[in-house]
Amino acid sequence: MTKAYITAHQDRYLHELFELLRIPSVSADSRHKTDVRQAAEYVRDRILEAGADRVELVETNGHPIVFGEKVVDPKLPTVLVYGHYDVQPPDPLELWNTPPFEPTVREGKIYARGACDDKGQFYMHIKAFEILMKHNALSCNVKFMIEGEEEVGSDNLPLFVKNYRDQLLTDVILISDTSLISLDQPSITVGLRGLSYLEVEVTSANRDLHSGVYGGAVANPINVLSQMIASLHDSNGKVNIPGFYDQVVELSQAEREALNRAPFDSTEYKRELGIAELTGEAGYTTLERTGIRPTLDCNGIWGGYTGEGAKTVLPSKASAKISMRLVPNQRPAEITELFTKHFLSIAPPTVKVKVTPHHGGEAAVTATTSRGYRAAEAAFKEVWGKTPIPTRDGGSIPIVALFKKELEVDTVLMGFGLDTDALHSPNEHYGIQNFLLGIETITAFYKHFSK
Amino acid sequence: MTKAYITAHQDRYLHELFELLRIPSVSADSRHKTDVRQAAEYVRDRILEAGADRVELVETNGHPIVFGEKVVDPKLPTVLVYGHYDVQPPDPLELWNTPPFEPTVREGKIYARGACDDKGQFYMHIKAFEILMKHNALSCNVKFMIEGEEEVGSDNLPLFVKNYRDQLLTDVILISDTSLISLDQPSITVGLRGLSYLEVEVTSANRDLHSGVYGGAVANPINVLSQMIASLHDSNGKVNIPGFYDQVVELSQAEREALNRAPFDSTEYKRELGIAELTGEAGYTTLERTGIRPTLDCNGIWGGYTGEGAKTVLPSKASAKISMRLVPNQRPAEITELFTKHFLSIAPPTVKVKVTPHHGGEAAVTATTSRGYRAAEAAFKEVWGKTPIPTRDGGSIPIVALFKKELEVDTVLMGFGLDTDALHSPNEHYGIQNFLLGIETITAFYKHFSK
Repeated sequence: MTKAYITAHQDRYLHELFELLRIPSVSADSRHKTDVRQAAEYVRDRILEAGADRVELVETNGHPIVFGEKVVDPKLPTVLVYGHYDVQPPDPLELWNTPPFEPTVREGKIYARGACDDKGQFYMHIKAFEILMKHNALSCNVKFMIEGEEEVGSDNLPLFVKNYRDQLLTDVILISDTSLISLDQPSITVGLRGLSYLEVEVTSANRDLHSGVYGGAVANPINVLSQMIASLHDSNGKVNIPGFYDQVVELSQAEREALNRAPFDSTEYKRELGIAELTGEAGYTTLERTGIRPTLDCNGIWGGYTGEGAKTVLPSKASAKISMRLVPNQRPAEITELFTKHFLSIAPPTVKVKVTPHHGGEAAVTATTSRGYRAAEAAFKEVWGKTPIPTRDGGSIPIVALFKKELEVDTVLMGFGLDTDALHSPNEHYGIQNFLLGIETITAFYKHFSK
Repeated sequence: MTKAYITAHQDRYLHELFELLRIPSVSADSRHKTDVRQAAEYVRDRILEAGADRVELVETNGHPIVFGEKVVDPKLPTVLVYGHYDVQPPDPLELWNTPPFEPTVREGKIYARGACDDKGQFYMHIKAFEILMKHNALSCNVKFMIEGEEEVGSDNLPLFVKNYRDQLLTDVILISDTSLISLDQPSITVGLRGLSYLEVEVTSANRDLHSGVYGGAVANPINVLSQMIASLHDSNGKVNIPGFYDQVVELSQAEREALNRAPFDSTEYKRELGIAELTGEAGYTTLERTGIRPTLDCNGIWGGYTGEGAKTVLPSKASAKISMRLVPNQRPAEITELFTKHFLSIAPPTVKVKVTPHHGGEAAVTATTSRGYRAAEAAFKEVWGKTPIPTRDGGSIPIVALFKKELEVDTVLMGFGLDTDALHSPNEHYGIQNFLLGIETITAFYKHFSK
């Protein structure tokens, strides 16, 4: 029944999603403030249209949260759907084959910023809800909480969760913002890494200098920043910050073996990325390095002259954005402090260093024994004909830990993207098949969850 | 006589210079191609007006060279004036207190890109020539060769010098593109460093990646580039490239002592730059580090997300502009090759590295015993009341070595800027007093040179 209905309506679903993808709701960029609000309003209207009792835009100190609900019967179980309507900046623009905010279909995939992360994914929930409403088949209460600041650290979410605690009461939180192993092998994410994100600035002289006149006598902030960044890893690929690994939970041999049972073809992985060699912390596999081990990456660096041609400048400043992916028990605030203290301590006396924390988020591990997990498992089996494998993802959705702590409820990470969907990158895309199968699987989830 | 005449005409001189400074003749930026030509035409017209017999724009593969001459009598000695009408890019624009191409006078200084380097400096020569013509006092032949590619490596100058060899015959080359020790202590530059300028690019994956999904397993090009840059200096501040110092001429103890006799106040130097500590190659003084020792500086670095806020991207590429200042006997081509070979050799197998040479230039040492030097010395004594000190400058004017080699003639580097003039930096400026004293000193030079 569901599949046929979805097929009959898929053009409209895609049309609606495309409308949403056309709104450049880049939360990191203040120039897009009104676009972000417009996306929130669009989401609100679609949830209302799908059959919610009420939907509101809850104002925050940043971008609004779309909160809506449909109460079928207070005695029935409740599902809270979380998602985010904000997107990553589209830079570098010149690498997109088609404009990031003009969704384009090529080879069965929707190309647009946010196609997968997370507009395409949370929108499946609105459509699954609509289908259940249309067929009078909704056997749970449903709440929607779609925020606009996930890509900038969900700074205003904790206060909202605190203030709306009573209205957020639920039996499970359902999130589609992660990846499947492949279309042949469904999976459910049971672990997410946390995040600590900082910006550092190294200042030498009080102005840009002529590199001929001062070069060799005055510290070059780019050279100094490079030395400082280089020192943040040791020769084994370990993060070289005192105390960084102190709280890291080491997995048992059995857990590591289970994790490494997931299909992984390193030749294909390298080929698809166009690289000759993998890298990482010595003693761990790629799946472990991206799933259960903490990391440190520079996300951006800039300083001096970056235009065409040559400029012989000894710049005044150089800066970098640096983030660390964290694993369970590593507290972002503590890691941010360890980083800051260490980074300031390694600064040579020739420069001034400023460290500005951006945002952080706790790592999370979700149960595979919960009612929600079992319902998701059953839904995948029904629609995909295969039992999903539990996997650990390297990404971060900081609110999973927050929900666990504040609402004392488990999250089910039922994502339908693929790691190759170019999230946060140029040419982000989302398979139409993933989108349609996702709607079908989510619809099945409700059936199994309310059993 | 000259001083009074200059005072009477200084408003017009400044007005003319300001017109030239308003033309954004940024040679590095192809968007400014027509501006560069406009500057060349302006210079041509002013030299003609001042009394030259003929002035032409000589076309090259890049920007044109302004070449003009005034033959008083073929039997008289000839002075060839070299300068450049192109300027450095004005970036970063936001740090300018007033627009770079809208010259503004504050506290006796002209603020504009090119005010000192080199429009303000070569323009003094046109005005000195005009004064001598007006007073029928020119006792030499004069040639002007004002090029438009000094800031991008003078790539097309060697061919021009070769083709125009006969027309360039001269007894001395006079250049004002360097600095004085101070307005209280005149100096003449007798040494210039050479330059090798390159751009490097480190590529990891074939696209930007999500740092959560791939971080820890795929090489981060910013981290790798930082490590590579960091390794280019050893712990003594020496450039860590095999063979780099092989050709460096070590100065004798006596030469070093003479060099260090120049007034230098490190407390004031640091205060003026706003830095707590100096840096550099162990075993050398600041004057030696900036004058007689080769150096390596990053002039720019970029990669990943550099916008507002946070983006958790594992970028595909990171790049840097790196230049080395060279000393006599270090050949730019050889150093460029040593750098390239070394930089490729230290690249880990996880990334691809590309090295693109930008431009280079030979170091130069000029004689203090030549007729030209003695005339310059006498001119300074007459106008400033003090004997100028010979100094070694850290900057590069590659054509000095070229002229010596091709034309077999000595250059006199009679500069009137100050190291604090913010060359290549925001808020570049040039003292009006320097400009006017410069015109007077150059006028005196002709008198002494033709004696």
